[in-house]
Amino acid sequence: MSILSSIKSPADVKKLRSADLPALAREIREKIISVTSQNGGHVGPNLGVVELCIALHRVFSTPKDKIVFDVSHQSYVHKLLTGRNGEKFDNLRKTGGYCGFCNRSESEHDAFGAGHAGTALSAALGLASARDMLGGDENVIAVLGDAALTNGISFEALNNISSSAKKFILILNDNKMSISKNVGALSKYFNDLITNPAYNRLFSDMESFLKKSGIGQKVAKIGRKAMHETKDFLMSSSMFEKYGLRYLGPIDGHDLPLLEQYLQFCKCSPEPVILHIITEKGRGLECALKNPEKFHGASPYDIHTGANKEHTDPNAVLYQDAMGKTLLKIAQKDKTVVGITAAMSAGTGLSHLKKAIPSQFFDVGIAEEHASIFAAGLAARGIRPVVAIYSSFMQRAVDCAMHDVCLQNLPVTFCMDRAGLSAQDGATHHGLFDIAMLRCIPNAVLMQPSNEDETADMLFSAVYSGKPCFIRYPRGKGEYVKMKDFPEKIEIGKAVELKKSDGKVCIWALGNMVSVAMKAAEILKAGGVDAGVVNARFVKPLDSALLAKHMSENSLIATLEDHSAKGGFGSAVLEFLQESRCKTPVEIIGWPDQFIPHASNVDALREKYGLSPEAVAGRILGRLRA
Amino acid sequence: MSILSSIKSPADVKKLRSADLPALAREIREKIISVTSQNGGHVGPNLGVVELCIALHRVFSTPKDKIVFDVSHQSYVHKLLTGRNGEKFDNLRKTGGYCGFCNRSESEHDAFGAGHAGTALSAALGLASARDMLGGDENVIAVLGDAALTNGISFEALNNISSSAKKFILILNDNKMSISKNVGALSKYFNDLITNPAYNRLFSDMESFLKKSGIGQKVAKIGRKAMHETKDFLMSSSMFEKYGLRYLGPIDGHDLPLLEQYLQFCKCSPEPVILHIITEKGRGLECALKNPEKFHGASPYDIHTGANKEHTDPNAVLYQDAMGKTLLKIAQKDKTVVGITAAMSAGTGLSHLKKAIPSQFFDVGIAEEHASIFAAGLAARGIRPVVAIYSSFMQRAVDCAMHDVCLQNLPVTFCMDRAGLSAQDGATHHGLFDIAMLRCIPNAVLMQPSNEDETADMLFSAVYSGKPCFIRYPRGKGEYVKMKDFPEKIEIGKAVELKKSDGKVCIWALGNMVSVAMKAAEILKAGGVDAGVVNARFVKPLDSALLAKHMSENSLIATLEDHSAKGGFGSAVLEFLQESRCKTPVEIIGWPDQFIPHASNVDALREKYGLSPEAVAGRILGRLRA
Repeated sequence: MSILSSIKSPADVKKLRSADLPALAREIREKIISVTSQNGGHVGPNLGVVELCIALHRVFSTPKDKIVFDVSHQSYVHKLLTGRNGEKFDNLRKTGGYCGFCNRSESEHDAFGAGHAGTALSAALGLASARDMLGGDENVIAVLGDAALTNGISFEALNNISSSAKKFILILNDNKMSISKNVGALSKYFNDLITNPAYNRLFSDMESFLKKSGIGQKVAKIGRKAMHETKDFLMSSSMFEKYGLRYLGPIDGHDLPLLEQYLQFCKCSPEPVILHIITEKGRGLECALKNPEKFHGASPYDIHTGANKEHTDPNAVLYQDAMGKTLLKIAQKDKTVVGITAAMSAGTGLSHLKKAIPSQFFDVGIAEEHASIFAAGLAARGIRPVVAIYSSFMQRAVDCAMHDVCLQNLPVTFCMDRAGLSAQDGATHHGLFDIAMLRCIPNAVLMQPSNEDETADMLFSAVYSGKPCFIRYPRGKGEYVKMKDFPEKIEIGKAVELKKSDGKVCIWALGNMVSVAMKAAEILKAGGVDAGVVNARFVKPLDSALLAKHMSENSLIATLEDHSAKGGFGSAVLEFLQESRCKTPVEIIGWPDQFIPHASNVDALREKYGLSPEAVAGRILGRLRA
Repeated sequence: MSILSSIKSPADVKKLRSADLPALAREIREKIISVTSQNGGHVGPNLGVVELCIALHRVFSTPKDKIVFDVSHQSYVHKLLTGRNGEKFDNLRKTGGYCGFCNRSESEHDAFGAGHAGTALSAALGLASARDMLGGDENVIAVLGDAALTNGISFEALNNISSSAKKFILILNDNKMSISKNVGALSKYFNDLITNPAYNRLFSDMESFLKKSGIGQKVAKIGRKAMHETKDFLMSSSMFEKYGLRYLGPIDGHDLPLLEQYLQFCKCSPEPVILHIITEKGRGLECALKNPEKFHGASPYDIHTGANKEHTDPNAVLYQDAMGKTLLKIAQKDKTVVGITAAMSAGTGLSHLKKAIPSQFFDVGIAEEHASIFAAGLAARGIRPVVAIYSSFMQRAVDCAMHDVCLQNLPVTFCMDRAGLSAQDGATHHGLFDIAMLRCIPNAVLMQPSNEDETADMLFSAVYSGKPCFIRYPRGKGEYVKMKDFPEKIEIGKAVELKKSDGKVCIWALGNMVSVAMKAAEILKAGGVDAGVVNARFVKPLDSALLAKHMSENSLIATLEDHSAKGGFGSAVLEFLQESRCKTPVEIIGWPDQFIPHASNVDALREKYGLSPEAVAGRILGRLRA
């Protein structure tokens, strides 16, 4: 029997002899590699925190003690040690399996859920502050990667630590690698902290010099006083001390006895403390060490070669590549076009631009707000910025979209990637609210392409529209259409009628739901209904002329969108219908008003929640017959 | 002729003799006091930057050079010096007068618009980066108050300065006073920086000691080397140097020759530089110096006494006080209830709690995201947090509302103050989008009280609902209803029928628009229509039973809300109508899809944009007759 299989709860981790821990660490790594090589997932980050999580569960006692993981993509080890090693872990990120993130409803050991970066410090401060108010004595530990500190919320929280909590432990897991390469001044700062021995050496040198020089007690005393003042100043001016945190480290985050020793010290500290640990992302998996960016969040892979298991379809074009390669083409012709990412150059396809023309590319770190306002500043001086942000992370920049871009009517193009489902990641990563949050903003132009070639056209049109534009598109493959060599402009606010109706129903479909609408139309045809299908293209402005025509010609308008049915595209159609005083009924088909969990794939979720072609056809038939 | 009246453009400022500048500063202060004492406005911040703005316009040349003011509430002096001294300035913040903030459409001297805090650095970095890409040579200057650094976006931008711009000037206007008292570690840091002479003294002491001690050249050399290493470390570890900014200061921000000298130095610096200036908020106005919080943003006041000119109505209760005093009552009975503000304790009415029970009050600085996630953390450990944030600033925390509060289904109550219009502040401060941005989020409960007593009931109900609740209410006076001694619970999702209809139309009004609906009903009555009126109370969940009943009983449903007509309450009603397959038409009455400017008062804007009782009645009659 393996050691890992004997771990049913954190108490079992505490019972182990120190000598058994390296074997446990090895078994955990094997387990994580085995599961992620099948299911995909955050391989590198979890392989990096094996020792940290073992040490945490030996020193602290969850669920009483609270461990808050930032993003919580690095929580697999924690899951394995808190009674979740079993079939559901083997099905991690699949339908019926555990979620790839911490989840309060999954286990009492998950003190706080996450998926977006930079929230752990704030949440943990809340837990610690509540403890102090209620007279509890538990420990609160926030575990942050170095990249989380490029996000502004972490700093807002740092600024409040000393006033909000007494005992508090921050573990900075520094793996010198954020999602994309860590950027900015902080990255340099950490590096200096680790590599520059001046601070410690200086004082030992001076002390020994003063002792040896034999100038006597008075000199040594003055020297010590001087050193003391200097040291105080150094300490108080080190970044974290300034925020009222006692700084410890950096230490080797793979040295289990050392980790336990330092964590014990942290546990006893009556004041907020930061422990800076250095870890190796992907430790124990050769291919992950060689390619840390790919293995941050990986698709199923071959353990030995690191190659993707799922064969890439040579005819498929990802929406991400359609956008990224088109942006590169535009930027090659026009030096005023730039791409901006918030630490997601690979995920968004901006890596094409980054590689080919780094001078027209900016990675600002996990800083969606800064990315957006920086883009607005660029646009105000004649640059044409394209900001690529995942739809669910764009929720961070809604105020910037309103206050800094649309109010000032600046021509910034937002590419909202992963609009719709991020199936295996789940609720934190689905992009189901962007239309509702953005279509209320005056001046905004909001659109979604129905295929990869239209993605290119929309990007090109947006960049030269002179308006604030928001383009949403899903993760993954396009529709296998031929892509033009260079994009063409499409008219803002024009929809495309793909199929005429027999007067019963016209389906106004948005983006990737156009292909679902076409399939639903085939099913409807078998049921005797010749449905019209429109590629709506624009949520704002709507193609009101075509919509008015269809309203007058059909008994029913159905809207279909990869977005919540609350406040989305269908809702915009409804508003237009009332403004034009038309009584044609509208069937809004979108995601229901609930958080959609993770699942093995998009189709499984579409079937479950009524967005498959069959379900769409069924809804429409039901309404027609009502 | 005064000096100020001779200033038609910044060129005129440059022409003045240095000896004339103190008189100009005096005249500017007189002008600002004269206008703000009539119109209200940001008195203190502008009186504090008179010398700074004069010096800026003597050293730099707008519009070529770009000055970006953070929040830009301190831009009055800049306006006076850039050709805007005239009738429109006298009507500042009034209908037809200039806006109280920078505005790109108002003047080419306004390089970037603002109204929310923390955006100047990002926007200015964009301007500087664009300049470098396009080969320009203008100067870019960001002017930030100390409070702006409590906001995370400023830090996201700081982290990117060194990689984004070559020449760049940051002016930190430190007046040791943010909107509420500046909070957190940074405040302490600035204070230490100003008051602690250890850094400079230490080195001069050591050098003279080593020289005097006569140990010879070798010792002095080692000593200098040691000092050099120490100094390098000190320099690189000072906060701003760490971010790649050369730090200058602190200097007296009211010393005009000194300011000009330092700004000239900044202008010549080839690398990013920060100039730390110390100013006195409210300088030149005795009452503002004595009460800086009141005179941050003041109502019209008596110049001599500082007393408000507008007599407070003894019978009126502000929504802010209804909320703040009720929260205090609840918190007095229940030690688990806390209030959280993002630097707006006075504005939101949380000052009542702050004063009476500071242990149940948190001011986290201008950090809406941290405030929201911190609240979520508190709620996860059994505390009942109430977060009071202005509606337009809540746009910053939309992701937190989704990711940290609603997804985890935590019982946090958000009080969204200034929902609807902030008439004199204008587009940046109106709260017209919160419903659209929040009602798409699953688990959210969203409501608006129709008067001050209902505000108390809703707060009480929300705090003990066990759900994520969002209560929106406007700035200013309630409806002169009697307030109960202690609030009562109201049922979540229940509307109140105030007036029965004759079957023609029922007006579903939300919040402060209920009283407008009642007045509109009176007008309609005179026109022969006996309209029904409902106090909707809840946007989410809607009172679907009552709404279904009214839909079946009336020829028309009209919805009335102090919110954009796009995606708001009316849109939610429309969605319900379609779900219930009802064909009753709906007239949605809300703010049009455009940015609403500032004006002297709410009524002026309601009249202009069709939300007065007369306009509402007219819209309804028009629809009934169609």
